[in-house]
Amino acid sequence: MSSYRVPKRDMQFVLFDLLNYEAHTQQLPGCEDTTRDIVEAIMDEGGKFAENIVAPLNAVGDKHGCTWHNGEVTTPPGFKAAYTEFVDAGWPSMVHPVAYGGQGLPASMETMMSDMMGAANWAWAMYPGLSHGAMKTLLEHGSEAQRQTYLTKLISGHWTGTMCLTEAHCGTDLGLLRTKAEPQADGSYTISGTKIFISAGEHDMAENIVHIVLARLPNAPEGTKGISLFIVPKFLPDAAGEIGARNAVNCGSIEHKMGIHGNATCLLNFDGAQGFLIGQPNRGLNCMFTFMNNARLATAVQGLIHAEVAFQKSLSYTKDRLQMRALSGVKNPNGPADPIIVHPDVRRMLLTQKAFAEGGRMLAYSLAQLVDIEDHSQDAAAKQEASELLALLTPIAKAFMTETGFEAASLGMQCFGGHGYIQEWGAEQNLRDSRISMLYEGTTGIQALDLLGRKVLANQGATLRRFTKIIHTFCKSQENNAELKEFIGPLAAVNKQWGDLAIQVGMAAMSNPEEVGAASVDFLFFSGYVTQAYWWARAVEVSLPKAQDPFYAAKIKTARFYYQRLLPRTASLALTMRAGALGLLDLDAEHFVF
Amino acid sequence: MSSYRVPKRDMQFVLFDLLNYEAHTQQLPGCEDTTRDIVEAIMDEGGKFAENIVAPLNAVGDKHGCTWHNGEVTTPPGFKAAYTEFVDAGWPSMVHPVAYGGQGLPASMETMMSDMMGAANWAWAMYPGLSHGAMKTLLEHGSEAQRQTYLTKLISGHWTGTMCLTEAHCGTDLGLLRTKAEPQADGSYTISGTKIFISAGEHDMAENIVHIVLARLPNAPEGTKGISLFIVPKFLPDAAGEIGARNAVNCGSIEHKMGIHGNATCLLNFDGAQGFLIGQPNRGLNCMFTFMNNARLATAVQGLIHAEVAFQKSLSYTKDRLQMRALSGVKNPNGPADPIIVHPDVRRMLLTQKAFAEGGRMLAYSLAQLVDIEDHSQDAAAKQEASELLALLTPIAKAFMTETGFEAASLGMQCFGGHGYIQEWGAEQNLRDSRISMLYEGTTGIQALDLLGRKVLANQGATLRRFTKIIHTFCKSQENNAELKEFIGPLAAVNKQWGDLAIQVGMAAMSNPEEVGAASVDFLFFSGYVTQAYWWARAVEVSLPKAQDPFYAAKIKTARFYYQRLLPRTASLALTMRAGALGLLDLDAEHFVF
Repeated sequence: MSSYRVPKRDMQFVLFDLLNYEAHTQQLPGCEDTTRDIVEAIMDEGGKFAENIVAPLNAVGDKHGCTWHNGEVTTPPGFKAAYTEFVDAGWPSMVHPVAYGGQGLPASMETMMSDMMGAANWAWAMYPGLSHGAMKTLLEHGSEAQRQTYLTKLISGHWTGTMCLTEAHCGTDLGLLRTKAEPQADGSYTISGTKIFISAGEHDMAENIVHIVLARLPNAPEGTKGISLFIVPKFLPDAAGEIGARNAVNCGSIEHKMGIHGNATCLLNFDGAQGFLIGQPNRGLNCMFTFMNNARLATAVQGLIHAEVAFQKSLSYTKDRLQMRALSGVKNPNGPADPIIVHPDVRRMLLTQKAFAEGGRMLAYSLAQLVDIEDHSQDAAAKQEASELLALLTPIAKAFMTETGFEAASLGMQCFGGHGYIQEWGAEQNLRDSRISMLYEGTTGIQALDLLGRKVLANQGATLRRFTKIIHTFCKSQENNAELKEFIGPLAAVNKQWGDLAIQVGMAAMSNPEEVGAASVDFLFFSGYVTQAYWWARAVEVSLPKAQDPFYAAKIKTARFYYQRLLPRTASLALTMRAGALGLLDLDAEHFVF
Repeated sequence: MSSYRVPKRDMQFVLFDLLNYEAHTQQLPGCEDTTRDIVEAIMDEGGKFAENIVAPLNAVGDKHGCTWHNGEVTTPPGFKAAYTEFVDAGWPSMVHPVAYGGQGLPASMETMMSDMMGAANWAWAMYPGLSHGAMKTLLEHGSEAQRQTYLTKLISGHWTGTMCLTEAHCGTDLGLLRTKAEPQADGSYTISGTKIFISAGEHDMAENIVHIVLARLPNAPEGTKGISLFIVPKFLPDAAGEIGARNAVNCGSIEHKMGIHGNATCLLNFDGAQGFLIGQPNRGLNCMFTFMNNARLATAVQGLIHAEVAFQKSLSYTKDRLQMRALSGVKNPNGPADPIIVHPDVRRMLLTQKAFAEGGRMLAYSLAQLVDIEDHSQDAAAKQEASELLALLTPIAKAFMTETGFEAASLGMQCFGGHGYIQEWGAEQNLRDSRISMLYEGTTGIQALDLLGRKVLANQGATLRRFTKIIHTFCKSQENNAELKEFIGPLAAVNKQWGDLAIQVGMAAMSNPEEVGAASVDFLFFSGYVTQAYWWARAVEVSLPKAQDPFYAAKIKTARFYYQRLLPRTASLALTMRAGALGLLDLDAEHFVF
């Protein structure tokens, strides 16, 4: 089995060649210390942790899974020890405010860490990973006392956090949720109800678990306007803020899932558990969006890492495996056959994985920079632009990167032939683990509705135009760059088409709102391919002057592959997204089968 | 969990409305008795067996898997009893020659059975399923004595068969295989070597297992021209043809796979086992193609059944699951939300599954008719045409149907949201089970090379023209059918484009043979979409006169969905297949990562 190697050279390329990371941090108050030296030290130390401590637990976690016994969950062998070491090294606190015990680095450093830790072992990385959303929610919406009590412990990593939204009868449609919160005389609430699919909802790795729970107050308005947000700790803090009484929240069972076996997906029973309101009553869903947007970006990274893992495994195998001769003649005369990497279709699969991994990295890190600007910039216009672009690009990144991550993982199995289907090589675990990313934190269909309905059409394309204008300006700026012409021509064309298609769908939706749902997923994929095309063109722009170096030459060749083999998928998407709602709605539900 | 229901109405449509099955059997000597009554009796009885006996073992098989102990394999609870009942009912013998104890029905009836049994439980269905290839190989290439000894037992189902090709270092490239066969004084051979990935290679369901094994004779020519084919029974038959001494073939282990846990995938050690040559020395690979083509068609059916299962499960769930309101207004005013089948994107997923399942059924059954003609027709020209069309369409059916089956299975998970990722509903088992179909019996890439290299370009497109002419003739015949116009226009266009693309790729390949591999998979998918478009147009043709009946109206609407939403994928494929080999080969193998 090939083992994970941190793609440092590519991470450096994205941060320093492409995104001018040092200039970026220099202009953000409080982030000036995040210099290239610091970033590379984190990359090195974090990379060692990922490669040496976390990656070796990946197959172990899949094989052993989590076990439930009388409400207690035992994580796979080695998980707890690795987490303890992770906490002792101070990793959980890296990007959180100094005022609450953090190290104050920009959030983008967490994205880089997640790229490494997630690729090494996604199921393990989710335990600390889910805490970040809880921390951000408390930081933005919690009271000062709540921050002192809970946020500090989460930042230290001694406690972990969860996000309790889903109930058996509602996931997407949170307006239907039934968990109740009854006010008590002391200002706290008793929380009663059952939540399902709670990742890291119960485990043995941390001292305490801070559940962030959506519930309804008595007489709350129906639907999403009657949902409030609560802190429900597994152990109630005592007066000193240390672990006190066990709260009435219990893990009833864990799910048997297709993948990410090392992460406990819990059913949680809240049996009159003590909870504490976060923010204003009935404004819980708004607060939760802080958590949700964070989680969506984190899940986008999951797409990238499955592509990266698939690529690394496939590359190693296809260079070693000898099978058949190249159609153009023998390439390995001393062996009984040629390594299968000589075959064009094997290379098509490898380059697809590579393009999705590296393209995803560019998109994910660029979005992380927007988060940094939102968090730290004092330039109101820059903050506003960053927020708008994030709103537009988050659903694209989440859905497109997870879907292409799954595609890459499946191609990974294909590169191994029959050997990919057995456990030995890890290709099948990567495929199984990748598949959940298209489901949680909102399915691809939900991201697509968010994108087309809320982010594009709701403001008549204003936000979309903000981004297409950035692409347009880039294309204009490169008009005289002859070497970039093969990229700029197609990019300008699909960029214009993107706006045109949004208008066409918007017009259709004015007469029938179902046209939005009928076009949305194809529109999202189209958006993903254009966005990636932009980043690949930018990658070529910065690589051209250094093309003597094989690294940069490879970047240009990968970009060319993207433009020749992946971007043309937009041609079909442009056709199908305009096919209209009628063909989807015309068949009565009772006539689907006879 | 929803349970499998045989789609009888659709099977009847394909056989009787579309393929004139009764006229087909009437013109085949020996098959005249296979009337509609007989077919429907098989559908009813086989369907009961599939629904009531085999389907309930599907989740059981996945959960328990097979267990290996000291060379013996125990199949999941219930598997053996169901197989015994299957044999007692005479199912294994249905389509085999009366002379050897069979019932003499045409092979197409086995395709219909496989559609039902496979959908009910693919892992179980593989045990009897693999025997058919062994039977056909013995019938075509075995001696009369071998047929009397082995074929009769296989036909009765008391013994099962395997296909032993793969070794650890070679799957696709069988020329590299090392298993040896040493001639003995008695005319038999001793077989030594290790085979891997042998489906049903060892199990407890039948009295004996007949391995069909590829091996090399001493001083055989290197490569594929030095491979011979042998019968190696687990138990050697005694003088009376009954089970005698245990042969030296042993199961060393079974694989831990992503799916089809109920089927034992075995490593077999041949330690000087006694074997018997089939056919001529060094002609083993030619004989094996009999087996292989049979297995490819059977695997194409696997693609169809995963689409069918995904569709049935998804339909049931999306009609029940209440979540959100339709964008065009409330559809279920008495419930807290609308069933998710009201949402256009959910319908897009359901209709994709339905189109691939029903389209796959049309293609699979039409190919089965060609097999019937090959087997039974006395019209030499008809036989020749059937063989040529089968040669062309088998790799298309195998790769396209399995790839779209996997897509449908993945959409199946998506329809369930997070609930799809857990074991409870069976959507994740269906996805895992489906994935192997793109690997075994030749990967998608191998099918694509076979199609484009051997079947299309090797005879300068003559075979392809034979099929495009059939489509062209159909389009011409419908020129004045106004109601069919929306289908015939696009069909004629992609049919012409198909031939044009073959010519373009062929021209490119003349200067660089790597162009074949660079275009092959996209060409195969393009071919699949055109082939399916043809059958959907044919389905509309026969449905139009009966469109008052909701069944036929639904058929027309599904065809329209196919033309609006799936056929346009050809637009992108036409672009990418012409992108050329350079962009794939330009990157040095050592420059894929740095």
